[in-house]
Amino acid sequence: MALRKVAIVGVGHTPFTFGGEKTSVELFSEAAMEAINNSNLKPKDIQALYCGNCLGDFSEGQGMVQSYCADDIGIAGIPATRFEGACASATMAIRDAFIWVASGFYDIVLAGGVETASKMGTPLATRTFAMFTDSHYEYPSGLTFPGAFAMLAHLYSAKYGISFERLRRQMSLVSVQSHHYGMYNHLGQLHKEITVEDVEKSFMVTSPLTLYDCCPFSDGAAMVVLASEEKAKKLTDKPVYIIGVGQSSSGKYSAQYKYLPRLRARELSVQQAYDMADIKPEDVDLVELHDCFSIASIIAVESLGFADFGHGGELWEKGETKIGGKIPINISGGLKSKGHPIGATGASQVCDIVKQMKYEVEPQRQAEEVKIGLTDTLGGDGVLAHLVLQRGW
Amino acid sequence: MALRKVAIVGVGHTPFTFGGEKTSVELFSEAAMEAINNSNLKPKDIQALYCGNCLGDFSEGQGMVQSYCADDIGIAGIPATRFEGACASATMAIRDAFIWVASGFYDIVLAGGVETASKMGTPLATRTFAMFTDSHYEYPSGLTFPGAFAMLAHLYSAKYGISFERLRRQMSLVSVQSHHYGMYNHLGQLHKEITVEDVEKSFMVTSPLTLYDCCPFSDGAAMVVLASEEKAKKLTDKPVYIIGVGQSSSGKYSAQYKYLPRLRARELSVQQAYDMADIKPEDVDLVELHDCFSIASIIAVESLGFADFGHGGELWEKGETKIGGKIPINISGGLKSKGHPIGATGASQVCDIVKQMKYEVEPQRQAEEVKIGLTDTLGGDGVLAHLVLQRGW
Repeated sequence: MALRKVAIVGVGHTPFTFGGEKTSVELFSEAAMEAINNSNLKPKDIQALYCGNCLGDFSEGQGMVQSYCADDIGIAGIPATRFEGACASATMAIRDAFIWVASGFYDIVLAGGVETASKMGTPLATRTFAMFTDSHYEYPSGLTFPGAFAMLAHLYSAKYGISFERLRRQMSLVSVQSHHYGMYNHLGQLHKEITVEDVEKSFMVTSPLTLYDCCPFSDGAAMVVLASEEKAKKLTDKPVYIIGVGQSSSGKYSAQYKYLPRLRARELSVQQAYDMADIKPEDVDLVELHDCFSIASIIAVESLGFADFGHGGELWEKGETKIGGKIPINISGGLKSKGHPIGATGASQVCDIVKQMKYEVEPQRQAEEVKIGLTDTLGGDGVLAHLVLQRGW
Repeated sequence: MALRKVAIVGVGHTPFTFGGEKTSVELFSEAAMEAINNSNLKPKDIQALYCGNCLGDFSEGQGMVQSYCADDIGIAGIPATRFEGACASATMAIRDAFIWVASGFYDIVLAGGVETASKMGTPLATRTFAMFTDSHYEYPSGLTFPGAFAMLAHLYSAKYGISFERLRRQMSLVSVQSHHYGMYNHLGQLHKEITVEDVEKSFMVTSPLTLYDCCPFSDGAAMVVLASEEKAKKLTDKPVYIIGVGQSSSGKYSAQYKYLPRLRARELSVQQAYDMADIKPEDVDLVELHDCFSIASIIAVESLGFADFGHGGELWEKGETKIGGKIPINISGGLKSKGHPIGATGASQVCDIVKQMKYEVEPQRQAEEVKIGLTDTLGGDGVLAHLVLQRGW
């Protein structure tokens, strides 16, 4: 059965912040109304809501936030669904919204995510977020996500025979680049150029990861409006099509031991998206990937097909991840500098790629012509979700 | 665009219990493997998982449970998605699984829900679950769900001019019937006949609701396998088709003040399901509805179209909700007696209707010929979701 083409017709994105006063519902409404206005629509045109949210039960004591969100923009009555797959929550929501439109069931829907991850403060948020590892056998051993990625860094170094010094520098280059582009993202959380030395001399979180290897917790929301091709053509002359979607899960870390530091679920998920889009990695012009920690970026580019295994860090060494390079990566600032409101992050990636395609970002971080973009999100340990976006003009 | 027909080809359902030792993953695996075996399939045939779960982050400190669930039955790698809409979580998951099969994207998927709501004990679970009301403006006033439904009972009595004595007796009759049929459900939590006097003399939870007006918290899982019509016909000679789906949200209680004690979202959601199925309430042979409190049943039957507004309780007074009556309701024992593992409840309703259609339940609670069944679930305050099931043989 043929699916309909589905387009993103508008995007909305709050500033990402730490320690703000706004609730999830308030942040949602800000992003949602911007996306709806950006689509030349009214709230009443929205037929359903797909909302990622991860920690709302803990950060605000608010479960089922989607119902209050829909009501807050005046559209109580629509089906409103919450998706939880840790950091991949919003990408899952958009992927799901995709099928409801592609199938012909709905014509215009709202999808994305919201989070107020900073409300708990970093230590408590880190501990709380550890429940997105296996909570019965692995969390009790003391595992949190900085620890999990630190172990991946050690494993990566050992498995591929990359000296600690070289990997340390590669990781630093990842963070330095993210902070550089993040300087110019007015919606981002951190606006501070850093050097390799800054990264290496910042305080140790969990060896080998220092503070500047780690993304911050953030508050924020990002929403997109999806429409059928027919509706999209009436609403905008710049539709961005979702031409590929992928999702996969991997179970707990110990279940992945044969593959680590590769995340097999990422390989399965992105392959689904590539196959559906009928593209290869070399067709991608811009990537927003899940750099929760600097080592995560290096691991990610390999599974996404942009570097051979054990050679991911070379992309940053050679400057290939910058604008004009072989494959620009996280020129939004990434999770590292733009910020990481967990359940909103995947939607933020989509918003930024759409804006890049439309030449709507700050000139200092505007990519050359972006025809095809890829988003990559990793939830917990993990759920992987990918979207391939294509410029429709 | 025409959607494919989608069938339920197998069901699985753990016992519902209070205070058991099993984790959500263990309960999921029990129900999932039963559903897969019941479908004449192997785990590897499952292409995606749609899992409702509401309180797992609190009850077990386990977020993103769906990833560990998929891994536990040997199918890490598939897309596994968690849905959270309070008590409606599993129905949302099944409705969503429906579209992925109806659209042609997948042929065989697993959907349902799991919860270990009893682990916290009733007082803490009640307080925790209150976060599925509005947490910023209403919960701080002391609102929990027994309080919310107690207020609805007072409002119902006042609005429709039904004396407290009469409504008290109607509510009691609801609970007495649920406990009667629940006696025979071997998968149910409570097995105890009660009388009207028992209900009225049990301890007051929040006026006018006594202990026997309230459903218990429970642990349990229920899963179903959905397949395209083509696949279904190869797997079973007794496919049960999902011919209608509906979902709606209402926002916080105070946003619903014009309608209460009616829940407008229920009316919107069930109408979607009826319209899609092209049926009327009188075509329904069996209903499993959301009797979290006895008053909730009386309110529900009216919005579902089985009684005029203000006359719902008369169905129980006249015995019309029993087997052989005008519209048999909750002959599984309902949430009241069978138990209420929050994120699994909607899937449990589906399992029981499928078994009723196949004459596979205990003879003391087997309905006469069930051709069309309706499930109704209310999440928090609320998200409403409905499914219309049709016997395919």
